[in-house]
Amino acid sequence: MSGARIDRVRARLAALGVDALLVSDLTNIRWLTGFTGSNGWVVVGRDAVALVTDGRYGDQAAKQLAASGVEASVLVGATGAETQAHLATLCAPHDRVGFEAEHVTYAQHSRWVEVFDTELWPAHGVVEAERRVKDSVEIELMARACAIADQALAEVAPHLEGLTEAQVRNRLELRMRELGATGPSYDTIVATGPVNAALPHHRPTDTVIEAGHTVIIDVGALVGGYHSDMTRTFVVGDPTPLQAELYELVLAAQQAGVAAVRAGMSVKELDGVCRGIITEHGYGDWFTHGTGHGVGLLIHEDPFVNRAGDAILQVGDVVTVEPGVYREGFGGVRVEDLVVVTEHGCRVLTATPKDSPCLPSPPTT
Amino acid sequence: MSGARIDRVRARLAALGVDALLVSDLTNIRWLTGFTGSNGWVVVGRDAVALVTDGRYGDQAAKQLAASGVEASVLVGATGAETQAHLATLCAPHDRVGFEAEHVTYAQHSRWVEVFDTELWPAHGVVEAERRVKDSVEIELMARACAIADQALAEVAPHLEGLTEAQVRNRLELRMRELGATGPSYDTIVATGPVNAALPHHRPTDTVIEAGHTVIIDVGALVGGYHSDMTRTFVVGDPTPLQAELYELVLAAQQAGVAAVRAGMSVKELDGVCRGIITEHGYGDWFTHGTGHGVGLLIHEDPFVNRAGDAILQVGDVVTVEPGVYREGFGGVRVEDLVVVTEHGCRVLTATPKDSPCLPSPPTT
Repeated sequence: MSGARIDRVRARLAALGVDALLVSDLTNIRWLTGFTGSNGWVVVGRDAVALVTDGRYGDQAAKQLAASGVEASVLVGATGAETQAHLATLCAPHDRVGFEAEHVTYAQHSRWVEVFDTELWPAHGVVEAERRVKDSVEIELMARACAIADQALAEVAPHLEGLTEAQVRNRLELRMRELGATGPSYDTIVATGPVNAALPHHRPTDTVIEAGHTVIIDVGALVGGYHSDMTRTFVVGDPTPLQAELYELVLAAQQAGVAAVRAGMSVKELDGVCRGIITEHGYGDWFTHGTGHGVGLLIHEDPFVNRAGDAILQVGDVVTVEPGVYREGFGGVRVEDLVVVTEHGCRVLTATPKDSPCLPSPPTT
Repeated sequence: MSGARIDRVRARLAALGVDALLVSDLTNIRWLTGFTGSNGWVVVGRDAVALVTDGRYGDQAAKQLAASGVEASVLVGATGAETQAHLATLCAPHDRVGFEAEHVTYAQHSRWVEVFDTELWPAHGVVEAERRVKDSVEIELMARACAIADQALAEVAPHLEGLTEAQVRNRLELRMRELGATGPSYDTIVATGPVNAALPHHRPTDTVIEAGHTVIIDVGALVGGYHSDMTRTFVVGDPTPLQAELYELVLAAQQAGVAAVRAGMSVKELDGVCRGIITEHGYGDWFTHGTGHGVGLLIHEDPFVNRAGDAILQVGDVVTVEPGVYREGFGGVRVEDLVVVTEHGCRVLTATPKDSPCLPSPPTT
């Protein structure tokens, strides 16, 4: 990254009339500097960058900054008070320092105000506004993560019947690691049958996957800190008319959403494309969540794609398109792909077939 | 839990002169109500409790509240604005509502202040002060989690040589799940050799575990939402004099710490017991972190055991005792147990032998 991201943030600070930014959010810190520790603050000034962390991470921070090509001093605070004193000193030369109002707690801000001489100014989403637009290195990491999840699901999906939800989760997560993922991108969802699959965020249990069930599998891999995200819904055995109808409906809504994606479109509009089709067919009440969200160093990040959002899609945004319907007694259907927004459309990163809900055949290798 | 926890929190609110508490922290919400969704707020008033969540979690919240025996109304907010309007309405009957100053962001507080008619008062650690003291149900869940990690490590540790760090992690995590854990308690640490083991929070890589290495394994299981936490250090082959010396030193410090634990002791004093022994032998600079932390629904929670803390240990606190030494070129040694504080000492929940750093024999079954 060699400091280019720092420069992008500095340009935003200049436009805001802020002399420096005190970065608290660890994901923003990772994106800016490469540092992956669980304790850290970064002060981005006009001319210098400094990172403050605790004793566990001093050496690691110096190495990761060097590897990222970011020139920054590293200060270690042995206690919270020492860390705060370091931050006060780093901010002191600046008249007005932005802080991340969406990440700093009320209590933290109150403590800073007591000891800082500098004016602290509530900044909103400064780093995030740059971070949401992915560069080619980031996109290729996410493409690799998607390919790993595709491969794991291709191997596991043919054999779902008779396994428990938890066993399917275990197989998927182990296989993704064997294929080179750091781990799962999030807690893998495997939700089967009329009760569990009706919960959009069900956690795997010992429920056995049986003939007649719809099974929702929501699985992603983590590669180099970047997440993938994909959902497929299967029907074990021959679909009932209602299973077939709802699968076709959700698939149509999802495909229409993917086809509609383009830079310059509002997230509300994209949500409306998917929601409109499902609502038109009388199942609007069964679609109980937003259409999607950004994905990157976080599994859920800007831009969020829903009825209430006012974001506009940009080239380089990576978002999910994932309409779904849920009802206890029936179960649920969700189909989700991860796409990169381009000028006139999008590139779909997830490649698992979705044309039919029937269990696939084992992959030929 | 049947509302008893709500009553304990109400007693604290009365003592603080606050009419209600607006709870934002999801761990506090889970502890109070049993709700495990990723979006929720709870208002604990004098006479009534209400939970606000989004469309994904409405049904789940009602079920989990009923299962916990907590009487509370559930309100669903389809958008952030609707959620905020619900919260404003719930707070309106109260003169003074506490909010969780350590969990609410500066930005969230600013938005609330704009639309709430009620005085918002910064409360600190109200729920946490009750949550840190574990009841017998919580302690037995953590004991089960510890037993699962013990068993998994007993099976995997004899076969470390020749495996990669990542393979060891995979085996431990899969085995813990097979033994009944929801998953690992945290990202399992496997750190081998003179470079990786020198990082207290190293993440597993493809580095192969070889003769001559010290290997730090930090592993825990998650059971019913409760975490376990344990570290053991192994030496592959015959320990060098320095490996033997540092293992004995860290073990002596750790055993002295466990022997010293009792209710009424300050965390600073407990940290001093472990740190004093290591410092006395000239390795104080190599002990770069605190002695321990509380464990429960979170892997790191109150009370934190370090030089700067001013907490006093209470009966029912569950804390780690985990001194360690680290130096690149040597590697590292850490030994960690999880203990429950009792009146005159503690109960050790983790049972993996620690008397020797040599690889154990496979368990006889």
